[in-house]
Amino acid sequence: MTGALIIAGLGPGSDHMVTPEVTAALARATDVVGYIPYVARIAPRPGLRLHPSDNRAELDRARAALEMAAAGKRVVVVSSGDPGVFAMASAVFEALEDRPDWHGLEIRVLPGITAMLAAAAAAGAPLGHDFCCINLSDNLKPWEVIETRLRHAARADFAMAFYNPRSASRPEGFARALGILRDECGADRLITFARAVSTPDQRIATVTLAEARPEMADMRSLVILGNSATRRVGPWVYAPRRAG
Amino acid sequence: MTGALIIAGLGPGSDHMVTPEVTAALARATDVVGYIPYVARIAPRPGLRLHPSDNRAELDRARAALEMAAAGKRVVVVSSGDPGVFAMASAVFEALEDRPDWHGLEIRVLPGITAMLAAAAAAGAPLGHDFCCINLSDNLKPWEVIETRLRHAARADFAMAFYNPRSASRPEGFARALGILRDECGADRLITFARAVSTPDQRIATVTLAEARPEMADMRSLVILGNSATRRVGPWVYAPRRAG
Repeated sequence: MTGALIIAGLGPGSDHMVTPEVTAALARATDVVGYIPYVARIAPRPGLRLHPSDNRAELDRARAALEMAAAGKRVVVVSSGDPGVFAMASAVFEALEDRPDWHGLEIRVLPGITAMLAAAAAAGAPLGHDFCCINLSDNLKPWEVIETRLRHAARADFAMAFYNPRSASRPEGFARALGILRDECGADRLITFARAVSTPDQRIATVTLAEARPEMADMRSLVILGNSATRRVGPWVYAPRRAG
Repeated sequence: MTGALIIAGLGPGSDHMVTPEVTAALARATDVVGYIPYVARIAPRPGLRLHPSDNRAELDRARAALEMAAAGKRVVVVSSGDPGVFAMASAVFEALEDRPDWHGLEIRVLPGITAMLAAAAAAGAPLGHDFCCINLSDNLKPWEVIETRLRHAARADFAMAFYNPRSASRPEGFARALGILRDECGADRLITFARAVSTPDQRIATVTLAEARPEMADMRSLVILGNSATRRVGPWVYAPRRAG
């Protein structure tokens, strides 16, 4: 048997957003690898081994998955959302760099509904015009890089989607980000907090930057800042197609 | 019967990337509305009326769909990719602005795999770090806005996904964009041309900005520029998780 590695996106939470190609890949897998809560979404069955691992072990997890694929297993590495957006795909390619002997392995990335698309859909269409997507975690980059990106994004008048806005271990970063955004975009700019999108816990709230508080976000939140033209219509928020 | 409007994303082309909730919505629809080639993807069946329309008729199409929903139909407006990314969702909310009597209508947006996610997956993980997403069509915004955004995005060191890079009617815009990017990012920066992703015509090519030519893109292309750390591994291209 020839091994293969598939890096698959499970979407933001609802099984109704898992693509058929991801479902089919999981049905053929011998091994599923991923962060504990994502692997918990996979139904056990005979012939399938589940390998849940901790959050900060991305590179080790990627190496273990490649090792199994090289040994002939059909391995699926699962990510929430899309595997290519702040998720496992980059970690797998990083792990691959050190091992030219693995470069011939069959590897496929299967896209998924990333959190910002599901959050935007639940709120209306706040990403309907040019936008950017920033991971606010400073685990893998210095705060100065985040600040520079926020300021350029504001001056480009991008809508902005923020992943990992706020964790218990570094609650001050998001407060600082909100301060920069208020400074650059003004107090009236709309900002949408989307929590646990597509799950029974989903909660969507749109406020102005003046009303926004850091506590409105946690690690299950995706935050979308509007551009200068973003507005409300009825219960919805959207970015018009024309530049503001 | 109570009408409803669903704005659904069909993904980039392959039926294997259509989410189950979109498939279910189409199965319950009485009317499907959209641009001709997207409506052509919907299988006809008794009880379903298809309403294909031309490309530049977004706002008229949105109004017609809302009108039908207000009259009690179960209408699905289809977009390629994700309806919230340079697609029909914003047009529907624009159409809704003038008609407060429609604000009580049941409206839902169902996300889809947008082209940049499928293109990134086919190429590796070029969107694995902070990125932006720019529609290069100047139909709805002046060229100066595009240029400003490109320069800020380059200085923020974002990877960049470009939608609608080049059309027959305005071939010069993409050549100008490449010039700006070469100026800001240097000749060695990697750029990926992804054409007709997820279809039998899919073609992926990664070159440097020095090698990039405007003719490498057309209206079926999605183009992804790397950030300063983006690199190749084997046949893949990816953005490392750490800032460059």
